[in-house]
Amino acid sequence: MTSRQATWICYPNDYEIWLHAQASVKRQFRGYICPPFWRLDGAYSNVMFRKRFDIAEEETVALSVQGEFVLHLDGSMIPLPYEKTQITSVKVPAGRHELLVKVFNDRTVPSVYAESASFVTDASWEATCHNGKWVAAAAVGFDDIACPPADFPFAYDTVRPVDTIATERGVVVDFGQETFGFVRLLQLTGRGKLRLYYGETLPEAMAGEMAETFDELSIDNELPRTVKTPVTRAFRYVNVQAGPGLVWSDIVHDYEYLPLTQLGEFRSSDDRLNRIWDVSVRTLHMNTREFMYDGLKRDRWVWSGDAYQSFLMNNYVFFDQDVTRRTLIALRGKEPVEMHINTIMDYTFYWFIAFYDYYMYTGDLAFIRHCYPQMMSLMDFCLKRRNDAGMMEGLPEDWVFIDWAPMELRGEVSAEQLLFCRSLETIALLAKELGDLDNESKFAKLAAELHERMRERFWDEEEGAFISGTLQGERIGQILKYPNMFALRFGYLNDSRIEAVKRNVMLNEAVQKITTPYMRFYELEAMCELGEKQRVLREIREYWGGMLDLGATTFWEQYDPELPAEAQYDMYGDKYRKSLCHAWGAAPIYLIGKYLTGVHPVGPGYAHYLVEPELGDLDWLEGTVPTPHGVISVYADRDCIRVTTCAGGSGTLRFRSASVPATNEGEIRLSGPGTYEIALTLPSSVYEVKRAFFSTPSD
Amino acid sequence: MTSRQATWICYPNDYEIWLHAQASVKRQFRGYICPPFWRLDGAYSNVMFRKRFDIAEEETVALSVQGEFVLHLDGSMIPLPYEKTQITSVKVPAGRHELLVKVFNDRTVPSVYAESASFVTDASWEATCHNGKWVAAAAVGFDDIACPPADFPFAYDTVRPVDTIATERGVVVDFGQETFGFVRLLQLTGRGKLRLYYGETLPEAMAGEMAETFDELSIDNELPRTVKTPVTRAFRYVNVQAGPGLVWSDIVHDYEYLPLTQLGEFRSSDDRLNRIWDVSVRTLHMNTREFMYDGLKRDRWVWSGDAYQSFLMNNYVFFDQDVTRRTLIALRGKEPVEMHINTIMDYTFYWFIAFYDYYMYTGDLAFIRHCYPQMMSLMDFCLKRRNDAGMMEGLPEDWVFIDWAPMELRGEVSAEQLLFCRSLETIALLAKELGDLDNESKFAKLAAELHERMRERFWDEEEGAFISGTLQGERIGQILKYPNMFALRFGYLNDSRIEAVKRNVMLNEAVQKITTPYMRFYELEAMCELGEKQRVLREIREYWGGMLDLGATTFWEQYDPELPAEAQYDMYGDKYRKSLCHAWGAAPIYLIGKYLTGVHPVGPGYAHYLVEPELGDLDWLEGTVPTPHGVISVYADRDCIRVTTCAGGSGTLRFRSASVPATNEGEIRLSGPGTYEIALTLPSSVYEVKRAFFSTPSD
Repeated sequence: MTSRQATWICYPNDYEIWLHAQASVKRQFRGYICPPFWRLDGAYSNVMFRKRFDIAEEETVALSVQGEFVLHLDGSMIPLPYEKTQITSVKVPAGRHELLVKVFNDRTVPSVYAESASFVTDASWEATCHNGKWVAAAAVGFDDIACPPADFPFAYDTVRPVDTIATERGVVVDFGQETFGFVRLLQLTGRGKLRLYYGETLPEAMAGEMAETFDELSIDNELPRTVKTPVTRAFRYVNVQAGPGLVWSDIVHDYEYLPLTQLGEFRSSDDRLNRIWDVSVRTLHMNTREFMYDGLKRDRWVWSGDAYQSFLMNNYVFFDQDVTRRTLIALRGKEPVEMHINTIMDYTFYWFIAFYDYYMYTGDLAFIRHCYPQMMSLMDFCLKRRNDAGMMEGLPEDWVFIDWAPMELRGEVSAEQLLFCRSLETIALLAKELGDLDNESKFAKLAAELHERMRERFWDEEEGAFISGTLQGERIGQILKYPNMFALRFGYLNDSRIEAVKRNVMLNEAVQKITTPYMRFYELEAMCELGEKQRVLREIREYWGGMLDLGATTFWEQYDPELPAEAQYDMYGDKYRKSLCHAWGAAPIYLIGKYLTGVHPVGPGYAHYLVEPELGDLDWLEGTVPTPHGVISVYADRDCIRVTTCAGGSGTLRFRSASVPATNEGEIRLSGPGTYEIALTLPSSVYEVKRAFFSTPSD
Repeated sequence: MTSRQATWICYPNDYEIWLHAQASVKRQFRGYICPPFWRLDGAYSNVMFRKRFDIAEEETVALSVQGEFVLHLDGSMIPLPYEKTQITSVKVPAGRHELLVKVFNDRTVPSVYAESASFVTDASWEATCHNGKWVAAAAVGFDDIACPPADFPFAYDTVRPVDTIATERGVVVDFGQETFGFVRLLQLTGRGKLRLYYGETLPEAMAGEMAETFDELSIDNELPRTVKTPVTRAFRYVNVQAGPGLVWSDIVHDYEYLPLTQLGEFRSSDDRLNRIWDVSVRTLHMNTREFMYDGLKRDRWVWSGDAYQSFLMNNYVFFDQDVTRRTLIALRGKEPVEMHINTIMDYTFYWFIAFYDYYMYTGDLAFIRHCYPQMMSLMDFCLKRRNDAGMMEGLPEDWVFIDWAPMELRGEVSAEQLLFCRSLETIALLAKELGDLDNESKFAKLAAELHERMRERFWDEEEGAFISGTLQGERIGQILKYPNMFALRFGYLNDSRIEAVKRNVMLNEAVQKITTPYMRFYELEAMCELGEKQRVLREIREYWGGMLDLGATTFWEQYDPELPAEAQYDMYGDKYRKSLCHAWGAAPIYLIGKYLTGVHPVGPGYAHYLVEPELGDLDWLEGTVPTPHGVISVYADRDCIRVTTCAGGSGTLRFRSASVPATNEGEIRLSGPGTYEIALTLPSSVYEVKRAFFSTPSD
């Protein structure tokens, strides 16, 4: 007997890849589509599913198929009634059988749902796209026979405006905060054109055709009818302009979102910090949908570099691994690999590295096994593109990105080699975990060789820093934070070099500042790792708080505190292009969860974890961090730390104390000057420590 | 200024690949689809087209796009009117510009039509599927702005039945010959079910639900209306069974076909042979559609081995190279190559070899250049599958086919190695013609090595024949015609071995007989090459004439003269499964054109050609053979041979004469005992030879 819940099954990865193509062309700019500039793949149209089973007596199989289909039992076609119905019933006699469902569907995704007394469609079925291989079919979360895998099952809330302002030609409605979805005009009567100009800010909505998005509806309603806009949009304000003959009763909007349970929490004695956490959560939630998006007004695309950070943030608040898996599959697409992911070299590497973090946070080796062949072919693509120095150098069709900032991107960019090296290490580690020892040693060797080459070529002893890169063997570019913070992040520096990098680069005011929340993520993470958590806390308050001061209800794609307020929405030379609900703006979720609440895994799937709460100048904080074993809760104030462990794994609580601390549970051991540790070996238990607070060294 | 005829453009190969998927699932069996058991690919959904041009004054571009789209001029979006129309007009100012059309279309094929005073969409535009490369866009023969590339533009003729037989529940209509298309019931009134059982023979139509295909229509017509069947079918008879409440005036059918000009002709003093030619032409024509099909009742699929023979026949009657090109593209599909074409090892090789013949018959190097990358990746797939002996041996997912006949298919099948070797030679030749000298020498070397290995391993001096194959170095299988006729065909035998093969295999009654028209093609071709043309003429009369005697109006998938008439329609264990309109049944077109009319190219694109008419026991024959330079016409009787040359190339007329012949033009030279040649150097000219007939040696 298999599991009793039948579910729609597809060819593996096809639903995600198909959905990704659909979702990637929903972006519009002033009435026109903006398709992404990378290849979009589709589902295989011609797919076959099979199940072998042995039944003691005749059974009736209820079956529904998305696509045209034919059934074979033990190699012979089963005649079905002329009248095709949504659900077909087939009798199967007792005995050992093979049931085969051949499906053709070039519109959506070939898929099958079947249910009988002793078997159901699930991942125990096999599928083939006729490439000579049978693989496990994929269940994609659609469990209702009447609802095959199609448009994504979002949730909707009806939202009413908080304010309505009359204008010469209509009204402007304000929904009070950044939102996303459809607009509905209730009891709309009359004949004429209706134009809706969307704004993430009031000036954008008032800019009319200079707004990023707008809709025009042709209305011809003799009787009052509700009219809904055709495409989801990101906005706070809607400027509705109507012909003279049009009247309506109300304007509301349907907020479209992925239903998620918020498992991670954070509160502290600082309300501004709490507000930053809340706005970060809303920012991340809105961008967490079919996939991890970059932003909702634009690009509405799935970018690997952006998604990677979202995965890490997600681990501290929703811990929804379904969206992570969907995103990783969608980003990779189908064979053959012809370009870097999103065309960007660094984005290919983030994709690899995401699997390392995925493994650490979830321990889910099954998904890694599932993606392993695609991982290998993408790495093969990379290895073939190495230059004579064995390094990754941008070819004409490659985008070498790193950050929106002036920098030298020719030749061997050291930041790219660091990401490449980490990718090789990731594959070596995963190969080991999967028992593929040949590849483990192959990739460990490649990583070690690259490591050695990087150290020789990029470490400048005089500067005490990683240089930016080389071109034909010669050093080029100025000293930048990127390679240095990556080297810190990946643990590639010894103690003396860590100190050098901290002094010469990370805390050096002369080094070019980072102005994207995107790279501030790694910069502040590195600062935390360097023990500068109080400084990071201050920067969070200033940088993200600066956006709040300008009225942000979600966090932005870019923010430069030095710009005047009226220039804040400008991007790419266009006054309202900047995306004001951008996933990478939610970095505080990760920084707070990992470095203030202070929880992170140190073994796969939180088999072992560290809890190291950091108050900084806060009076108290309390946080909850989700894990595969349930949540870990942390409370800390100057005198007390209280940790409630999750139901599995084992942890280490690390904290500072000016005098010898006391605990209700476990043994305290001194682990460094003024630093103590307790092994958290008991599951679902409360450890309470009394300590004498003293501030961190950098405070 | 470019060519003035605008045409719809697509990403190269996408229209053919998309159309192939559509066409491949039209096959039905008793009400259900029969999708093929190979991967079906689709068009890229996200495609970008561009054109660079320089115009002296402002121009208005008329534009139509299949799919959602956006226009960019010199990198900036061109705002278009809100109201999207079928045809958009855009003004472009004077100067040098780049026009970019970004299209998304996941339903059909992204495509663009544009026309202005100085440029139009044609193959001078470029396209990308966002794989980092721009390639020439493909024009696919749709020249009307109102008709984008979609369903194939077939022609239709209305056909009335030649006979109508009343039955208990309706009527059986007879259209007089094998046909293909839709059925229409005129002025149909009433309410109830209508069932149509199709038969290529009367017994099949009368077999009701045991017929291969049938339709059920639900009728509810208060007033008389024409009702048309939904799917094209192959049939001669339709058994219409109607509920009591249904009446109609007439039953007609719409014959669906590809409009083709018949350029090749043949007539002779033998009416039976003339009828065989005519029925062959109809058989080939019916199967020549979007692609070269195997058969119309079934499989309605594109099979490489079948198509290869159709290409050769086509060269002697329609010379429609568009369908050949569409078929070669469709068969190959997209990257990555994961399986042999149609899953069959030999079918991969026929695909390569088809390019050799394509080049010889057309001289079209541009298409070969177009397909060259796909040729290389398919060959790369083959090379990686060689066994330790450097030979192609079937892997578990491979189908090693050769013919429907008992034979040993394990290990190194010699027929497969011969096809493989010819494939390598083909690539070497084409590489040379394309100036890719590295690959020329690489593949020439691979071919020579394989050649040597085949000679060592497969030639049995004692048997005086190629053996069937080896398994782990040991000879297996009996002596069969296949490897021997392939070795003859590819010129792999010296004169003494040719004689040995002829005696020991081809004319040896003890060797297993071939019973498919498919392999009779090569068998009879080989016999012709062995000088046994009179024997082949007799065999054509007997074998194909045998089908005529059984009432064939098109030629069959299989025919064994030794079976009783009532077992003739049986195939794969089903009484009416045999396809009675099967392309490979039309082999006489090729055999007659190449060996009786006697025309074939000996240089690429008929740059040089041979004319060697063979009367056998005929009193006279006249034939016309199409070439890229127009037709070559041949008349021959016992005393006279008259050749009208085509407008290009140069030929050699070869013939036998019992005494010294005379000619009106050119110089006669003795080329062997009783054999003379005249160089046909004048284009579009008549060469008339008087000779004294004597029969061929084998007669």
